[in-house]
Amino acid sequence: MLLQQTGCSRDDGGDDVDTMEQAQEYGYIGRKEDYLKRLRRIEGQARGLQRMVEEEQYCIDILTQVSAMTKALQSVALGLLEEHMSHCLVQAAAAGGPAAEVKVKEASEAIARLVRS
Amino acid sequence: MLLQQTGCSRDDGGDDVDTMEQAQEYGYIGRKEDYLKRLRRIEGQARGLQRMVEEEQYCIDILTQVSAMTKALQSVALGLLEEHMSHCLVQAAAAGGPAAEVKVKEASEAIARLVRS
Amino acid sequence: MLLQQTGCSRDDGGDDVDTMEQAQEYGYIGRKEDYLKRLRRIEGQARGLQRMVEEEQYCIDILTQVSAMTKALQSVALGLLEEHMSHCLVQAAAAGGPAAEVKVKEASEAIARLVRS
Amino acid sequence: MLLQQTGCSRDDGGDDVDTMEQAQEYGYIGRKEDYLKRLRRIEGQARGLQRMVEEEQYCIDILTQVSAMTKALQSVALGLLEEHMSHCLVQAAAAGGPAAEVKVKEASEAIARLVRS
Repeated sequence: MLLQQTGCSRDDGGDDVDTMEQAQEYGYIGRKEDYLKRLRRIEGQARGLQRMVEEEQYCIDILTQVSAMTKALQSVALGLLEEHMSHCLVQAAAAGGPAAEVKVKEASEAIARLVRS
Repeated sequence: MLLQQTGCSRDDGGDDVDTMEQAQEYGYIGRKEDYLKRLRRIEGQARGLQRMVEEEQYCIDILTQVSAMTKALQSVALGLLEEHMSHCLVQAAAAGGPAAEVKVKEASEAIARLVRS
Repeated sequence: MLLQQTGCSRDDGGDDVDTMEQAQEYGYIGRKEDYLKRLRRIEGQARGLQRMVEEEQYCIDILTQVSAMTKALQSVALGLLEEHMSHCLVQAAAAGGPAAEVKVKEASEAIARLVRS
Repeated sequence: MLLQQTGCSRDDGGDDVDTMEQAQEYGYIGRKEDYLKRLRRIEGQARGLQRMVEEEQYCIDILTQVSAMTKALQSVALGLLEEHMSHCLVQAAAAGGPAAEVKVKEASEAIARLVRS
């Protein structure tokens, strides 16, 4: 039941009210508003880049903005990952069984994609 | 006059019609529509991420989308950089003088920011 | 006792023979020879780069080798990290208590350094 | 003849003494000793990592060293690239003709490999 929390697996039933309430305290869900705010800012950066291209601004300045936006995205990813590990992974490990192994493999693949992108 | 083209420096006068026409053939400006399309798609990815967080989707799946978006951004940056070098930098070098040195330094710093972000 | 294994913490007593034997099955230690082989190959790449510079080879070719070496290093890092998570982190989580939190924080910081380098 | 300098192309004849002397002033060749020193230090880092694995040190500490080594390698790459652009690329552009285009394409591909590694 503990593993049933929102955000910690792909197919949450999660209709149970108690579980939902509990879920608010785990994973990135507990900081949902913060992540939404950061992603809205990133969306704004994407619009800002379009404006720069539209106005034919200097390409080096556009590249500087692309780097800033990439850093903001990476920072979101690192935050999500830390919360994933400290909640979903730790919980799966505490519960025992093969679930932890699956979570580690998934997290490792996600990290590899981040490092290589 | 050749260096006066849009996108190749920070302070374009660029009001001259001939220069504007010519500019269409140089730098990223010639592929402006392509870049705008890609940046609109990236903006859409930022909105998609907000939806995923809103719906409390699985964090690993969100991370996969963040990696895809980062790759799309990097690809835009690499394209802009190549066009900057093949037009602005090559042109400054052909014109001779200290302008080329400045362009190389700027480009190097932009590359360092990309590599480290 | 389980947490006392080699490679999973900074200050291992680890003199106990039983613990040492057990340690062979955990973390990167179990694949020590594989990691040593990969690191020796990376050391060879560093020497190869010196030879290329010594012989004044084409800089683009040197850069290609630097990228290959960076990828090899990253691959070692990703392997170490996966084994760290699947052994040290999972074990700390299973044991309960604040140790897991510390391990997650350490791992997150290591991941951030990898992503940003 | 100017383009014939060492380090600026793959197939240097470069036997001519005058050209060789001149080459000392261009590209990374002029800072050859500095690059060799940095690469020797990187080779030392690769040996240090082997020692850490040999001694079964804490994996997080090994990862910290891997990140430091990756940064050192990237810094070498960025230096080589800047010198390549400021000498080989600028020179090819000044000479005119299709050589500059080839150099830009090569440099762009090298940058893409660096950004993605």
